[in-house]
Amino acid sequence: MQTHSQTQATFAMLDKPHRLVASDRVEGTPVRRSDGTKVGTIERLMIDKASGKVAYAVLSFGGFMGVGVKHIPVPWDRMKYSVALDAYEINLSDEELSHSPLFEGDEAFDWGYRDDVIGNLNFYRTPPY
Amino acid sequence: MQTHSQTQATFAMLDKPHRLVASDRVEGTPVRRSDGTKVGTIERLMIDKASGKVAYAVLSFGGFMGVGVKHIPVPWDRMKYSVALDAYEINLSDEELSHSPLFEGDEAFDWGYRDDVIGNLNFYRTPPY
Repeated sequence: MQTHSQTQATFAMLDKPHRLVASDRVEGTPVRRSDGTKVGTIERLMIDKASGKVAYAVLSFGGFMGVGVKHIPVPWDRMKYSVALDAYEINLSDEELSHSPLFEGDEAFDWGYRDDVIGNLNFYRTPPY
Repeated sequence: MQTHSQTQATFAMLDKPHRLVASDRVEGTPVRRSDGTKVGTIERLMIDKASGKVAYAVLSFGGFMGVGVKHIPVPWDRMKYSVALDAYEINLSDEELSHSPLFEGDEAFDWGYRDDVIGNLNFYRTPPY
């Protein structure tokens, strides 16, 4: 049962901006360029077990009915949500996307590693989180 | 297309332990006590937008067919996965669980805030992440 004081506290905070976001709210959120064109969809977040920090988001794009889907890692600090676009606003060019690797359907790719492979995919060239 | 060198790199890392875990793999994972009894299920992770750090996991438990489900925040550093249990091993007593608030079905509770309300729910009394 939610107590009275908790209800009050909840209402008192309704006008504050959120500092937190739910993982299952990020998953499935579209990614668009500033002009509104769709880049792809955030598939999941990869989290460092030791530090609890998001290492990167996995962006999926392209393909048709699961075939030919490509993935690219996106550093967390690039994940800026745009209310206007109702999407994460990330300006990835077709040229940049063309460099990312293709993984069809359930093809095994171990996103649990961040080292060499992920480093190679990270065209942002950001330092490890 | 996955290049030859990427394939090699992937295979070379197959015997290393994972440092990362996928958000959608954490969601839905059961939580058990060391003796194997089930406490509940990890519902989602709440992530700090600014820092990219997991603020806490939301553990749901109790209830029947969505009615009477209760939630409790679990600090990330308590999220130790046990291969033997095939679950997160978290020893929460019935006494501790009884102190957590009840939210039925889709009752609005804004997990996006961490301040007062979340602080009140946090019987671990860990400092804010």
